[in-house]
Amino acid sequence: MIPIEEQLQQIKRGVDEILPEDDLVKKLKENRPLRIKAGFDPTAPDLHLGHTVLINKLRQFQDLGHEVLFLIGDFTGLIGDPTGKSATRPPLTREEVLENAKTYEHQVFKILDAEKTTVFFNSSWMGQMSAADMIQLAAKHTVARMLERDDFSKRYKGGQSISVHEFLYPLVQGYDSVAMKADVELGGTDQKFNLLVGRQLQEAYGQSPQVTLTMPILEGLDGVQKMSKSLNNYIGIADAPDDMFGKIMSISDDLMWRYFELLSFRPLDEIADFKGRVEQGENPRDIKFLLAEEIIARFHSEEAATTARGGFIAQFQKGAVPDDIPEVELDGGDEGIPAANLLKDAGLVSSTSDAHRMVKQGAVKMDGEKMSDSRVKITAGGPYIFQVGKRRFAKVSIK
Amino acid sequence: MIPIEEQLQQIKRGVDEILPEDDLVKKLKENRPLRIKAGFDPTAPDLHLGHTVLINKLRQFQDLGHEVLFLIGDFTGLIGDPTGKSATRPPLTREEVLENAKTYEHQVFKILDAEKTTVFFNSSWMGQMSAADMIQLAAKHTVARMLERDDFSKRYKGGQSISVHEFLYPLVQGYDSVAMKADVELGGTDQKFNLLVGRQLQEAYGQSPQVTLTMPILEGLDGVQKMSKSLNNYIGIADAPDDMFGKIMSISDDLMWRYFELLSFRPLDEIADFKGRVEQGENPRDIKFLLAEEIIARFHSEEAATTARGGFIAQFQKGAVPDDIPEVELDGGDEGIPAANLLKDAGLVSSTSDAHRMVKQGAVKMDGEKMSDSRVKITAGGPYIFQVGKRRFAKVSIK
Repeated sequence: MIPIEEQLQQIKRGVDEILPEDDLVKKLKENRPLRIKAGFDPTAPDLHLGHTVLINKLRQFQDLGHEVLFLIGDFTGLIGDPTGKSATRPPLTREEVLENAKTYEHQVFKILDAEKTTVFFNSSWMGQMSAADMIQLAAKHTVARMLERDDFSKRYKGGQSISVHEFLYPLVQGYDSVAMKADVELGGTDQKFNLLVGRQLQEAYGQSPQVTLTMPILEGLDGVQKMSKSLNNYIGIADAPDDMFGKIMSISDDLMWRYFELLSFRPLDEIADFKGRVEQGENPRDIKFLLAEEIIARFHSEEAATTARGGFIAQFQKGAVPDDIPEVELDGGDEGIPAANLLKDAGLVSSTSDAHRMVKQGAVKMDGEKMSDSRVKITAGGPYIFQVGKRRFAKVSIK
Repeated sequence: MIPIEEQLQQIKRGVDEILPEDDLVKKLKENRPLRIKAGFDPTAPDLHLGHTVLINKLRQFQDLGHEVLFLIGDFTGLIGDPTGKSATRPPLTREEVLENAKTYEHQVFKILDAEKTTVFFNSSWMGQMSAADMIQLAAKHTVARMLERDDFSKRYKGGQSISVHEFLYPLVQGYDSVAMKADVELGGTDQKFNLLVGRQLQEAYGQSPQVTLTMPILEGLDGVQKMSKSLNNYIGIADAPDDMFGKIMSISDDLMWRYFELLSFRPLDEIADFKGRVEQGENPRDIKFLLAEEIIARFHSEEAATTARGGFIAQFQKGAVPDDIPEVELDGGDEGIPAANLLKDAGLVSSTSDAHRMVKQGAVKMDGEKMSDSRVKITAGGPYIFQVGKRRFAKVSIK
C-alpha cells in the first residue's frame, strides 16, 4: 500500500467532509484493506453521472488497495410504502430486487473492480430480525436526535406528517454498518445524518465506529441544479456515445473543471496542467474533448470515444457559420423591416417573392432557427445571422 | 341481558371517561357478550385496592354478561430495559412471567369470574412478529401524535431523553387490541392515550374500533395522593384482615364515600341510602364498618370480616378514653409546669417521685403517646389527656 499521506490526498479529492479524519488516519495506519461501504436504493437502477461521483470514490479506494462493500438496501424495498399513501411504491418482489441488482452490477462494474467488490443485500440480516430485536435497536437512539435531522426538523416544524416508521429507517441503515463491519461509509452530503447513525450504532454494538465520508451532489448540465432525471439535465451512463459527447461539449468551462475533479480519473496535477494551458490561451473546447473522450471510453470504449469525437467535429463543421460572411446594416424604421425585404436587401435572395418561397420551403434560418413566417418584422438590434440554403450567409444589423 | 339503559348506568359508575359513548351503545345493541380488554404489567403482581378499581369494573361487565380478556403484557417484560440504563429492569424469563401470571390469577379471581375470563399473553403474537411487521405497524402512527402524549410532550420540551423504542410500546399495546379483537378496553386515566392508539390501529387494520373506558386513579389512605406502595398509603389485597379493617377505619368520611363508589359492589341506591342516614345523624363509623367488612369478605371471607370487626371494637374499647374523666386546670406560669408536678397536681400520682417512677416504667401517656421524660415542662395550652396505668385519666388545661 502506498504511504498514508498519498492515500489521504487521493481520498480527499472532491470530498465534502470526512468525519472524523483522525479516525481515518488511524484505520489507514493499520495497513490492511479497509471495508468501504456504500448503500444503494434497489428501485432506481438507471445510473447517471451524478451517481458515479460516489462510485468513482469507491474505485479510488479500490485502487489504493481497499475493499468495497456494495450494499443493495432491498429490505425496505421489499416492504414498499407501509403507509399506503404512495400508489407508486408497491413492495418489490424478490425477483425484481435480483433483477435490479443485476442491472446495478452491470453498470457499476464499468467503474468498480469486481474482484475487490462484495455485493450485499440487507434483507439477508434484516429479514431475520424480530420485532423484539427492532425494539432493542430503536432503544439505541433518541427522538430528539432524530428530530435534529434536517428534513425531519423542517417537516415537524412545518406541521407535515412524519410516520413513526421513518425514524426506524435510519436505524436500519445504521445497523447495516454493524452487520457489515464497515470501516468507512460513503454517501452524498444529504446522507450525513444517516452515516453518523451507523457510526453511533457500531459503537453501541461494541464495534470500532466507521468513518463517514460525504461526496458533493453533482450539478447537472445547467451547472446550477443537481443532476437528475426529472430535471432532464443529466447524462445517463447508458446514453449513446454521440449524445454523451454532445452533452459534455455543451457544459460551461467552469462546470468542466468541476466534472474533471469529480468524474475524471486523471491525476490532479494533470488537471492543473490543463488549467494552465487554457489560461495561456488554449481553446477550452480541446480540453473538453479530453473529458468527453475519457467518460465515453469508460462507459463504452476507446473506439466509441474516437468515433464520437469525429462525429461531433464533422457535425460542428457542417453546421458551422463561415468566418468571413458579409456584414450588412439596414434601417428598420419605426416598425421594423419585414423578413422578406430584409433577405432581399441583404442580397440573400433575388426578390421578396423569392424570399417568400424560400421561407415556405424551410430554407431560411435566423440565428440557426428555421424561419416559418416571411412577413414577420425584424426590429432594431442584431447582428443576426441569416442563412439561405447551405451556403448563403449574411450578418445583419438593424438600426 | 338486561336493558341497555340499565347496563349503561352500571358501566358508567365511577368511570372517568367513555370514548365514544355512542360506540358503546351501538356495541351493546348488538346484544352479544362484548370482549372487554385490560392489560397488566407482568412485573408487579402484588395488587392493592388501587389496582382493583379497574378489576371491579371488569367484574361489573362480567355481571352484565360480557367476557373479560385479561392481558398480561409479557412481551416488553421479556425484553427488559433495552437502553441498558436501568439495572433494576433485567429481562424476565418465561418462567418468571408464568410465575407472575399465576400470582395474578390467584389474586384477580377473588374479584373476577374465572368462567368469563380469558388470560392472554401478548408475547404469543408479538413474539412472532418480524422487524418488517414492526415497521409496518410503526407506519400507522405519526411522530407528532406521539409527541402529544403528556409525558412525552413534557420530556421533549424539558430536554429529557426519549428513546425511539418508547414510541413503539404504545403501538405494541395498541396492536394487542387488534390481535385480541377487543370491543372495549379499560385503563387508568393515565392510559387514555395508549387506549386511543389501540382504537386507531384497529381501524387501520380494518376492525371495528374499540371503545375506551378510563377509570380514575384511587387515592390512598391519606385521601390526597394516589394509592401506592412507595407512598405507604395502600391496602394490599393480601393484607391480614385486622390490618385491612384498621386501615379502612382510619380513612376520612369523604374518602369513605369515594371508596364506596369505586371499591364496593353495593348498588348505588343503597350507598345513597347510607349517605342519607349519616346526614340524619347516624355515626359514619358504623357505615365504615360495612365497607371494611365487604372488602375483607371479598379478599378473605365473611368470617374473617366478622372476626376483624370484633377485634377492632375490642381494641377500640380497650384503648378508648372514658367519657367522664376529671377536668383539671393548672397554672403553668411563664416557663410551664414540669410533667411530674403536673401529674401530682392533677391527682394522678401521689408524689413527684411517684411520677418520676411511673414515667420511667412507661406507664404514663400524654395524648396517647408514652412519655419518656418526667422533667419536660408543659406550657400553656390543652386540654391534654394524661393517663397513668390503665384506668387513671385526667383532662388537663394549662393557663
